[in-house]
Amino acid sequence: MTVDERFHGDLPFETAEAAAERVPTGAVVATSGFGSVGYPKAVPETIAAADGERELTVLTGGSVGEEIDTALVESGDMARRFPYLGTPAVREAANDGRVAFHDRHVSRLGDEVQYGGLADVDVALVEAVAVGEDWLIPSPSIGQSPAFVAAADELIVEVNRQQPLALQRLHDVYRPGAPPDRDPIPLTEPGGRIGDARIGFDAGKLVAVVETDRRDSTYDFREPTDVDRAIAANFGDWLAGEVERNPTMAESVRLQFGVGAIGNALMGALGDADLGDRDLVYFGEVFQDGLLDLVDDGTLASTSATTLALTRDGQDRLFEDVERYADSVVLRPVDVTNAAELVERFGVVAVNSALEVDLYGHVNSTHVDGTHALNGLGGSGDFNRAGLVTVVALPSTAGGGDLSRIVPMVPHVDHTEHDVDAVVTEHGVADLRGLAPRERAERIVEVAHPEYRSALAAYRERADEYGGHVPHDLETALEWPRDRQRE
Amino acid sequence: MTVDERFHGDLPFETAEAAAERVPTGAVVATSGFGSVGYPKAVPETIAAADGERELTVLTGGSVGEEIDTALVESGDMARRFPYLGTPAVREAANDGRVAFHDRHVSRLGDEVQYGGLADVDVALVEAVAVGEDWLIPSPSIGQSPAFVAAADELIVEVNRQQPLALQRLHDVYRPGAPPDRDPIPLTEPGGRIGDARIGFDAGKLVAVVETDRRDSTYDFREPTDVDRAIAANFGDWLAGEVERNPTMAESVRLQFGVGAIGNALMGALGDADLGDRDLVYFGEVFQDGLLDLVDDGTLASTSATTLALTRDGQDRLFEDVERYADSVVLRPVDVTNAAELVERFGVVAVNSALEVDLYGHVNSTHVDGTHALNGLGGSGDFNRAGLVTVVALPSTAGGGDLSRIVPMVPHVDHTEHDVDAVVTEHGVADLRGLAPRERAERIVEVAHPEYRSALAAYRERADEYGGHVPHDLETALEWPRDRQRE
Repeated sequence: MTVDERFHGDLPFETAEAAAERVPTGAVVATSGFGSVGYPKAVPETIAAADGERELTVLTGGSVGEEIDTALVESGDMARRFPYLGTPAVREAANDGRVAFHDRHVSRLGDEVQYGGLADVDVALVEAVAVGEDWLIPSPSIGQSPAFVAAADELIVEVNRQQPLALQRLHDVYRPGAPPDRDPIPLTEPGGRIGDARIGFDAGKLVAVVETDRRDSTYDFREPTDVDRAIAANFGDWLAGEVERNPTMAESVRLQFGVGAIGNALMGALGDADLGDRDLVYFGEVFQDGLLDLVDDGTLASTSATTLALTRDGQDRLFEDVERYADSVVLRPVDVTNAAELVERFGVVAVNSALEVDLYGHVNSTHVDGTHALNGLGGSGDFNRAGLVTVVALPSTAGGGDLSRIVPMVPHVDHTEHDVDAVVTEHGVADLRGLAPRERAERIVEVAHPEYRSALAAYRERADEYGGHVPHDLETALEWPRDRQRE
Repeated sequence: MTVDERFHGDLPFETAEAAAERVPTGAVVATSGFGSVGYPKAVPETIAAADGERELTVLTGGSVGEEIDTALVESGDMARRFPYLGTPAVREAANDGRVAFHDRHVSRLGDEVQYGGLADVDVALVEAVAVGEDWLIPSPSIGQSPAFVAAADELIVEVNRQQPLALQRLHDVYRPGAPPDRDPIPLTEPGGRIGDARIGFDAGKLVAVVETDRRDSTYDFREPTDVDRAIAANFGDWLAGEVERNPTMAESVRLQFGVGAIGNALMGALGDADLGDRDLVYFGEVFQDGLLDLVDDGTLASTSATTLALTRDGQDRLFEDVERYADSVVLRPVDVTNAAELVERFGVVAVNSALEVDLYGHVNSTHVDGTHALNGLGGSGDFNRAGLVTVVALPSTAGGGDLSRIVPMVPHVDHTEHDVDAVVTEHGVADLRGLAPRERAERIVEVAHPEYRSALAAYRERADEYGGHVPHDLETALEWPRDRQRE
């Protein structure tokens, strides 16, 4: 049923100031938002502007904007944060210990909160395009809002007039039931629909409705570099071979790309890959700008995501034409988009970026030098673990070439050797399937930057002296990340 | 339909010698077997005894006995091996590079082989209790046999008269279909049944049937030590609190325990835990001796596994009374027992052991000193990743107390901090849920052996000087595993 008004029934309208007073010191606040869009804005900013430090635990679906992850940190109101660091301010606070942060797989956070004992939600704070007495329609991301609303004692809704009401046409809200009586998720096509546009709740939970009229502080991706384009071309060549070989890709290819500039470049380059007349399907978590052209020109048969993680320009483009995009774009809760069950069922090729990869295929996605958190794991672990074929795509160097991203041993592991099938850089593709660690190392060195290959080979020689299935020289294995000199 | 004869229809009976000749040099051979039972015996031994080195790639469901993992290694016939090392001989060969080994999640191997490009199976070699022209009934393990039989060009069946025909009563064979048109796995109760006792195949595949009459070379677990019992008691206390708190455990508790002596002790001690009148359900991959008493006395409402990983005595006990055990024991393919979809659906509490755990909860399950492979990952990654609450249970020390299993940084990561909710040793339970890395470290030090706590605290102080979200002193982080001196 389509809704053409923003407010329905007898609603508890409040100012942001009054609603903010409903969030007491020490509260656990779970908000909407993912991909830097669709998060509440007025109430968090009002809390930040108020006197005192509320020591809040803040849960979100994924990345949110400055109104939460900068304002509440700078005001001293945020004590604890899961599962993702959306801004430099909260990143710095997590690294210096002011905010207690832990990085969680975004797919599992709903279950962890509702059933797993991670946190007891006091208040859910959700941005919507429309609200009724016992339902709301999310704005441009769904994230973990269904689980958060279900878990919370009280619900505050921000209805944002800047978010088109037509977004409801994209939404497909389905929240798996409680274990152990949970049913299989009934989605049998990547682009299918199994729910509706609304998140329902007990009417008694809704304590405040706040009107707002503000844009999201969206992502601002850099333009693809030559290196990004070379990575995308290498991936495209590899994919063209894979679809020929793989019996599950005879008619369609289901792809996921991680958020960020490389993901965006990879998405954009898909149109150039030689995939015959196969249907291209996006089954991931973020709908980025790179997909817009592919939807426009019909290259993508369908796309499934939990957020419209677009730039401001991309958002304008989609908002102007939501009805048309709704034919091929579905937004779902992240515990559906990233469900292992579905990623396995559809045989998704998962493509995610990383900070660095080691000789054996272990991946560091999150911690610079193994110690300093960057953003968070997001859904990379969800797709790397359940994807049929999993690809890590990254430039071979960082720091303008001064650092190799291929290292002897990563100082922080987010994805293990067991979950990485191929590594792609601008220098080629290391397809690791069916290979033992020593063989994997040989292939991975070949996609390192040429200037670092001899240093990596020298490490391999040192490591071989110690022997074993995964040879390492533990004395020098970690020296590399802090002292990556060119040979 | 129950089968009361071992052979049905017109079958290609052969000697083991004739069947062994059907396995050419360079072949990819995929065998039945898991938990050291239900693997083919005569044909591998005959290959090993023959002249020449066949350079085989050998895939199994999980652990198999000496007839494969020792005989084929010593004869030089094994060139490559996935996904598990079943004997000291193959472990040594993987470590010194004679056998190219890669450790895979056992849940995913069927898909990796049939659809993921891991290997192209030439011959499936499967032990059965009965066979027809286009079906077989597996012996005491199911493992990956359905996927292997489907993927193989040719099939050789060993019918073993030592394995009771009544095992068919335990089996529930269901192999998920091919992506992207795979259906949800229709299992809605942990102890339910969705298949039948048989693995079907195209009649043309069956090239040889070999009769055998030999016991499995079963596991031989050590008796629980005082430390094992203390770990089990600590886990039991923690579980008693968890079931009270957790809304999904109001009526039943679904548990998985990893294979091994500690798993066995934990299973055995379940009867002593104070879980009220809740149903206890085992939803794991291995049915070990520790579960027999619990089935006998009605403590376990149902058990689901892929193998009867019993000792010789345990096997005798179960084989004598298969019909009765069949009321509450189901054997399934490992891509069902370990499916993320089902582990999530049933809200399983996953309990697995490990070699060592670091201050932040990263786990090394497989590689001594980070380099030397022990057995393999098995299903620990499947359950640690998808379980609702995940527990790592291990003694605080190894080597008779000379080594701490709690270390500053593990030199090999099989399970990341994102997938570990609690660490249990004989000194207590570190419940890590909702904690940031620094807080996790504080709790984990408390369950280390008292003699190592000050050394760990000293490392934390050094690490704190470098700061960051996950503080580490990379210069000394890995010194510890090679130089674990008591303070």
